[in-house]
Amino acid sequence: MTSKTIPMQRSALNPLIIPEDIVPSFSDWEVLGAFNAGVARYEDEIILLLRVAERPRQTDPAHVIVPLLAADGEDAGERSPITTVKLDKHHPELDFSDPRVIRNRAGKTLYLTSISHLRLARSRDGEHFTVDEHPSVWPEGAAERWGIEDPRITQIDDQYYITYSAVSEKGVAVGLLSTPDFQAFRREGLILAPTNKDVVIFPEKIGGQYYMLHRPVPEGIGEPEMWIASSPDLKCWGNHQFLMGLRDGLWDEQRIGAGCIPIKTAQGWLVLYHGADRSNRYCMGAALLDLEQPQRVIARMREPILVPEAEYERSGFFGGVVFACGAVVKGQEATMYYGVSDDSMASVTFDLASVLDQLQPPD
Amino acid sequence: MTSKTIPMQRSALNPLIIPEDIVPSFSDWEVLGAFNAGVARYEDEIILLLRVAERPRQTDPAHVIVPLLAADGEDAGERSPITTVKLDKHHPELDFSDPRVIRNRAGKTLYLTSISHLRLARSRDGEHFTVDEHPSVWPEGAAERWGIEDPRITQIDDQYYITYSAVSEKGVAVGLLSTPDFQAFRREGLILAPTNKDVVIFPEKIGGQYYMLHRPVPEGIGEPEMWIASSPDLKCWGNHQFLMGLRDGLWDEQRIGAGCIPIKTAQGWLVLYHGADRSNRYCMGAALLDLEQPQRVIARMREPILVPEAEYERSGFFGGVVFACGAVVKGQEATMYYGVSDDSMASVTFDLASVLDQLQPPD
Repeated sequence: MTSKTIPMQRSALNPLIIPEDIVPSFSDWEVLGAFNAGVARYEDEIILLLRVAERPRQTDPAHVIVPLLAADGEDAGERSPITTVKLDKHHPELDFSDPRVIRNRAGKTLYLTSISHLRLARSRDGEHFTVDEHPSVWPEGAAERWGIEDPRITQIDDQYYITYSAVSEKGVAVGLLSTPDFQAFRREGLILAPTNKDVVIFPEKIGGQYYMLHRPVPEGIGEPEMWIASSPDLKCWGNHQFLMGLRDGLWDEQRIGAGCIPIKTAQGWLVLYHGADRSNRYCMGAALLDLEQPQRVIARMREPILVPEAEYERSGFFGGVVFACGAVVKGQEATMYYGVSDDSMASVTFDLASVLDQLQPPD
Repeated sequence: MTSKTIPMQRSALNPLIIPEDIVPSFSDWEVLGAFNAGVARYEDEIILLLRVAERPRQTDPAHVIVPLLAADGEDAGERSPITTVKLDKHHPELDFSDPRVIRNRAGKTLYLTSISHLRLARSRDGEHFTVDEHPSVWPEGAAERWGIEDPRITQIDDQYYITYSAVSEKGVAVGLLSTPDFQAFRREGLILAPTNKDVVIFPEKIGGQYYMLHRPVPEGIGEPEMWIASSPDLKCWGNHQFLMGLRDGLWDEQRIGAGCIPIKTAQGWLVLYHGADRSNRYCMGAALLDLEQPQRVIARMREPILVPEAEYERSGFFGGVVFACGAVVKGQEATMYYGVSDDSMASVTFDLASVLDQLQPPD
C-alpha cells in the first residue's frame, strides 16, 4: 500500500492560544508558553488544561533569574510560595544554549528556565477559548519544585484522571490528579518514578484492568521508547512491557512518546504519538493497538500525520515542534489540539478513516 | 555522638562461594561470578539464590564472544536458547575497558560481557554451602535477553517474593518472582520500568499496604538515589516518593541502593544499603526508617559499616566491592551475605544493637 498524504485541516484561527492571552500568576512575571494542553469534554464545553510556563520578568541583562518552589512552603495550604535563583550569564560552568533548561558543562540539567502550572481554557465551538485568570493546579511539594507539565486527561465514567510530569531536582516523575468538575483537583500521588513522561491512560478497562502507555528514559541501556503497563485501581501500576521503539532514519528515530488518549475504533486502539528526529523536529504519527491485547502493536504508519510546517509551528520559543496531548472525536472526525513550538496551542481536524486506512502492519 | 567502629566478624571461611564452585550451564562455558545472592531461610536451611554470570569460554584472542538469549526462543517452554555475538577486540568504535560491559565510544552500553541466571545454594550452618548443578531460574523473554541479576528475597507468610534486575537492550527493569519452595518459580511480571534496580520489599504490610525501596537511575535530571513506593498486591506499585539521597564527599556520594530486606527493630526499619564513591568503591551502610511511616528517614549513619578491606574484597573481577542483597537475623545477631568484587560470596556477622546504637538523626 502506498502512503498517501492524509488531509489535515488546521484551524483558520491557529494559533488558538498564545502566551499573550495568559494573565501571569504574579504581576512582575511573564508568560513564556501556554501549550501542551490536556483535552476533555466537560458539560457543553471543550476544556483545554494548559501547561503555562512562566518566570519573573528578566530585567538584568547580565543574569538569568530562575523560579522554583521554596523548599519550606510545602504545607502552606495556599499556593506554594516561589523562590528564585540568580545565575550569571557568563558563568564558565553554565550552558544557557537551550532556552528550556540551564545545564552544566557536563550536560546535566541544573535548572529549568521557567516554572509551569496547569490552567483551564474553555470553549463552546472548540476554536474560541477563554482562559481562566488564575491557575487551576499549582505545583506542590518536593516532587513538583520545578513545576508540573504536559497534562493528559482521560474521562472514565464521571471522573477525569489527569497524568502530568512532576519535575524537581530529583527528576521527571509522573503524577496523577483526579477531578469530577475541573474545579476541585485531588492529588493521587506519583504513579511512576523518574525518568518517565508522556503517560496516557486508556479510557476504559480492558480485560478487567486499566492500561497506560508510558515513556521511560532509560539511563545507560535503552532508548526513550514506549511501554505499556496495567493497574487494578489507576494508582498502582505493574506488568510493564515494552511496546514500540524508535525507527532508525525515520521521523521518530530519536525519541517517541504517547500523545493523545488512545481512541477506540473498530480496527483497534488508535494511538496518536509524537516522535522526534536527530534534529529535534517533533511530529505526530499514528499506530494501532489490538483492542483486547493493547500490548500488541498491529499497525504503525511509516510517515507522520502532522509535521511542523505552518509559520507558528516552525518558529517560536522552541521551534519545529507539534506536540499533542489530546483530541476530541465526533463521529468520524477528530480534532487534535497540539502545542506548537513550546509556546502556543493550535488545532487540526481530520477524518479518522483516512488515518485508519493507512495503518499498515509493523516492520 | 562519636562514630565508633562496629565489630564486624567476617566468616573465617570467606569467600564462601567462588566461581570455581559452580558447574557451568553449558559444557563449553565458564563461570565469571557467583555473587549478589538473595538470602532466605527455608525449612532448616539458609538459602542463597546466587546470581551466576557466565559466558562461552573465550578461545579466540582477537575477539570477544558475548552471550544473550536468542530472539526467537521465547516460548520454548524449556530453557530459552542462547545466541552469541562475536566482537573484534580492536574495533575502533568499541570500548572493552569495563570488564562487565561493552560500550560504544559515546558511552552507550551495547552488550554485557556475560549472561546471568539465578542458582540455588543451601547450607545448614550458614557457612558451608552446596550449590545446585543446574540453574533455578533462567532468563526468559525479550525483557531478560541479557540476563537476570541481583535477586532479593522477602518472605511473606508462606510465600517468597524475589525481585531481580531484568536486563535487555531495552534497559534494566525490575521483575518479580514468587515461590513457595524454591523449586517452582512463578513470574509476576515487571514491577518497575527501566532504569531501576536494587528493589527490596518490606516483609509485612504497613498501614494496610506493601512497601518497597527502589533505586531509579534518572536521565538528564536527578541522581541514582533511593525511593519508596507502596502496593496493595505486590504486583502494582504507586505512591512513589523520594527517600534518601547521595552525600557529597562521603562514601555514598556517587550512587546508593537498597541491599538487604529491611529488618524490623524496636527503633525502626533497619536498612542496610550499598553506596559507591567517585572511585567506584562499594561499601555497605545503615539507615533507619520510621516503623509506621517508612517514607520517613529517622537516622542515617555517617560512616559505612562494611568497606572492602579483605583481599577477596579488594581484588577480583571488579575489585573494591562489597554488595549485600540479604541477611539472616537470629536474636540480636545479624549475618549479612554479600557479593565481593562481582565474583564471589562472603558473610559477616555483627550485633544489631551496635549498629542501632550508632544511628544518628539525618543531616
